[in-house]
Order: sequence, then C-alpha cells, then structure tokens
Amino acid sequence: MTVTLESAREAFRDQLLDAGLLVRTQVDGLYGRSGVFEDVVDGIDRVVVAAGADQGARRLRFPPVLPRTVFERTDYLASFPNLTGSVHTFVGNDKDHARLLSLHETGADWTAELVPSEVVLIPAACHQVYPTLTGTLPEGGEILDVYSYCFRHEPAADPARMQAFRMHEYVRVGTPDDALAHREMWIARGLDVLGTLGLPATPEVANDPFFGRAGRLLAHNQRDAALKIELVVHLYGEDEPGTAVVSANCHQDHFGTPFEIRTADGETAHSACVGFGMERIALALFRHHGLDVDAWPADVRSAMGL
Amino acid sequence: MTVTLESAREAFRDQLLDAGLLVRTQVDGLYGRSGVFEDVVDGIDRVVVAAGADQGARRLRFPPVLPRTVFERTDYLASFPNLTGSVHTFVGNDKDHARLLSLHETGADWTAELVPSEVVLIPAACHQVYPTLTGTLPEGGEILDVYSYCFRHEPAADPARMQAFRMHEYVRVGTPDDALAHREMWIARGLDVLGTLGLPATPEVANDPFFGRAGRLLAHNQRDAALKIELVVHLYGEDEPGTAVVSANCHQDHFGTPFEIRTADGETAHSACVGFGMERIALALFRHHGLDVDAWPADVRSAMGL
Repeated sequence: MTVTLESAREAFRDQLLDAGLLVRTQVDGLYGRSGVFEDVVDGIDRVVVAAGADQGARRLRFPPVLPRTVFERTDYLASFPNLTGSVHTFVGNDKDHARLLSLHETGADWTAELVPSEVVLIPAACHQVYPTLTGTLPEGGEILDVYSYCFRHEPAADPARMQAFRMHEYVRVGTPDDALAHREMWIARGLDVLGTLGLPATPEVANDPFFGRAGRLLAHNQRDAALKIELVVHLYGEDEPGTAVVSANCHQDHFGTPFEIRTADGETAHSACVGFGMERIALALFRHHGLDVDAWPADVRSAMGL
Repeated sequence: MTVTLESAREAFRDQLLDAGLLVRTQVDGLYGRSGVFEDVVDGIDRVVVAAGADQGARRLRFPPVLPRTVFERTDYLASFPNLTGSVHTFVGNDKDHARLLSLHETGADWTAELVPSEVVLIPAACHQVYPTLTGTLPEGGEILDVYSYCFRHEPAADPARMQAFRMHEYVRVGTPDDALAHREMWIARGLDVLGTLGLPATPEVANDPFFGRAGRLLAHNQRDAALKIELVVHLYGEDEPGTAVVSANCHQDHFGTPFEIRTADGETAHSACVGFGMERIALALFRHHGLDVDAWPADVRSAMGL
C-alpha cells in the first residue's frame, strides 16, 4: 500500500468522524453510525431490494451469531482463521467466579476462566442458510434473501475495512447451471444498482486474503477459476486500488457437499450468492457525492427514497 | 417452573417453528426469522418510534460487538458472568495454524489456539452509548435512541429466552431528576405502546438473575430500591409467571461514574433507559392475536402499518 493511499484512507475516516456520520470507539474498525448514515444504508437497501424484486426470494433474517457446529462444517478455519470470532462464556460456580473477578481486578487475562460457547460470529450472511437446506431441494431449487451484521477480525484505520458490517445477499441453491446463471445475472444487476447510485464500478476477479502459505495456493486457484467476481469502486482516484463493494460468487458444491443439500433429481446442489456490502457502498456514496446527503444528485436521492 | 409452564413454552415454540415464523438452528435459543416475523418486528418498531417521536433523541446505531475495554468498565462480569459472550480469534503463524487445523480435524478443542479479541458481544444496546459521552454533557443532558442485536448466553427451549435478540432503547443521561423522570414517563408510554398493540401488561419490580451467592444480595438490593421496572405480559394464562417485554431502568450513577460523564454543572451524570424487547413483544403478539397476522385486530395492524 502506498503512503498516499494509507493517508487518504485515514483522512476520509477522520472526515466521516468529524461530520458525525461515524462515531469513534476504542477499537479500530468498530464504529457507531449516525441516523443519517443509517438512512443512507436503508436507501441503498431500497435500490438493492428493487433489483431483486422479481426473484421471489424467501426472506430470512438471522442474528449475527452462528452455531459453532455449522461453522466447523465450512472450511473457514482453514482459509481465514485470523478473521474468526469465536464466542466464549463462563459456566463455572461461585468459586470459579471469584477467581474470574480476581483476575479481572488485577488486570490479568480473565478470559482464561471462559469456555467456548455454542456459537461463533458469522463471517458472511449466507452461512446461516445452508444448514437449513440439508436434504432435497424443491424442483427448481431455492432463492433466499438474507441480511445481517457480519464480523471479520481485521482491525484497520481504513474505514472500508470495518470489523462489523452489514451484508445483504441473494443466495441461489440449485443445479450447477442455476448457480452460474445467478452469479452472471447479479454481476449485471450489481452494476445496475451501483449505476443507479451514481457509482462507476468495474467487475474484477476476486483476490481474497487466504491465510498463510497454504492460502497462497488457494488464492491462486480462486483467481484461476474466476469463480468470485467483485464490483470495485475507486474511492481515491483511478491510480489507486479500488474497493470491492459487491461480490458475486459461485461456490460450486462448496456448501452443498458439507451440508448435504441435493437438487430434486438427487445431485449435490451448487450455490451462488451476491453480497452487497452496505457500509462500503455507503462510504463510496459519501466519497463520490460528498458528506452532505441533501446535496447529492436528485436522481440518486430519488432512487434511494431519500 | 411448573411442568405445565415448561411444556406450554415448548408447545408455543414448536407452533412458531411449524408455521415457519421461526427457523430452527442447532442451538437452543438461536433462530432464523421469517419475512413475516420481521414485518411484525418492524411494525412494533413503528409504534415504539411514534411513542418516542417527541423526544428529539439522537439516533445512533452500533454493531452487535462492543470494545472489551468498555465491557470491563461495567460490572457485568460481576453480575452476569454466565451470560457473557467474549469474542476470541486467531493471531498465530503458519505453524500455529497447522496445529489449529489438526485440533479441529481430530475433533479436539481448537479454540485453545485462540486469543481474546478486542471485542465482546453486547449484552444491552445502551452499553455502547456511555463511552461516547465521557466528559461534560450539554445543558439539559442527552437523549439517545439505540437499537441493536444483543447476546445473552442462556440456551433454553423457551422461545422468549433467545440468546440473540433485538432491543430498541431510549436512553436519558443527565441529572438524577432527569433520569428518574425518564423512567417514570417510559413506564407509562411503554404501557401505551403495549396497549396499542392489544397486549394487556402490568408493571412489576424487576428480578434480574444476578449470578451466584453474591448475586442474591444484588438481586435483593435491586428489588428493594425498585430502580428497574418491567412491563410484564402473560403468555400462558394469568396463573403462570408473565414475560417481561419492556424494561424501564434508572441506573443512578452506575454508568456515569465509570465512564466519567458529568452534567453541565459538573455533577456525575445519572442515566435511565427504556428497552423494548422486540422479539418478546412479537411473541406476545403471536400468542395473543394468533399466528395468522392477516387475522389480527384491524386497529393493531393499522397502528403497526401492516
């Protein structure tokens, strides 16, 4: 990363904080959002929902935590262990509690008294869906609409790299052709959504930050197969790397196999999803149209219902 | 708890699951919500927001995780250690990662390789607010509107005891009189909200489940001081204990002191909050008006904008 890009990101974050659109916490990448910021997120969502209106998607909403048993059936720990958020809790008795408090009071690591709970934070909204589909899909498969807060442990000053952020997804589960067609369609629709918002975007083959030595091979394979496409918006000029604000991803049987999902004709189901990164799209809007929402282009405001 | 009550709760949960309003996960107290369930939550929220419209509250939205340093400044670990959700992550190298994966593959406890992250799950929506107010309040104090997913580790078959649920709060921070008046006003307004929804409710002094031997004293003090009032709706008949769906709580200087919040005249700020338990109110509506939202009383549907 260039010094210029790094300082441009920090300057933008400081503008957002100074304008009160984001509220600082003591943790990098963790922010409060103002009412105006939330209105913008809701406005983006209206445009997303309009783009998906003909999908007949089954709307499901899940909390930001996922059963640990579900998490363990994905390969997230192999690919992104460093982004994981495992939830731990206290199950001891009075004596254990006294020890816990004594550790806390002396500034020691009180978490030594905790044990893993039954849940982890979700890294992506669609992970909640697959365990609910175990078995045989109806004829034609399923389209689902999910939207929730996700967590990725990557503290950063870059406002576009939040640790907790929202993702609205349309998920297709069906035949290999269904999954590929969903991804292709949503690359086009994603570009339309961003166009409606006045954000120039380009599709790029994704380059996920797989962990470690083994991860370099996984990243290489992902780029080679070109299964995941990101829609990228430039926040700091065309010469700097852009920010992925939407991703359209064909998972092949990556979830169908571990969650034992079959199509109506008995084959292992394939899946694909499009994910709209709500905070990142909001940041792109503030960057391209300015911090004063009232001064945004009339057609953008109108499409967002603002 | 009587066998009757326990089985009534489980029967109600099964009805909600069978109707597809809730979606089962592998963890007790963790559910997906259908689109209809979400429409009901949004409808409840319209009534809540209408009740708070004259408050001029500053709307702030926070993710479901809180800085660990903030959590450690409250006394939550002393009072409710068993409900805590501490978020842990992996910060190791390739060799540590290989060990993590080997533990996972052999079914051993892979979390031994994790370390505490900078965040914990939030137990109550308003905990995010206080650290942002450190310093001197403006004249007249502040009223804030916060709404987020909360986490409490208490797996249960009772659908009203979810591990992850939403709480919409109006928080008052100011003088002792401001705080007390806020709590009093919101007991009345909370009853109005529930009345509008067709839910008969009664205010009761709260009886929080403070942990352990020391907790019995804390619970006794809380009841004695009558600082926290809950609005209780009966879901299983008048003879069974009711379910607290709203709480109005005067914290005195419980947050003002650790977060060093002062009123304009230099005194330690007091605070109070009203919290609407969105899922619990939704469950009460399904219980009182039936599982078919279209058949609910017209005035209730109209007030909810359904």
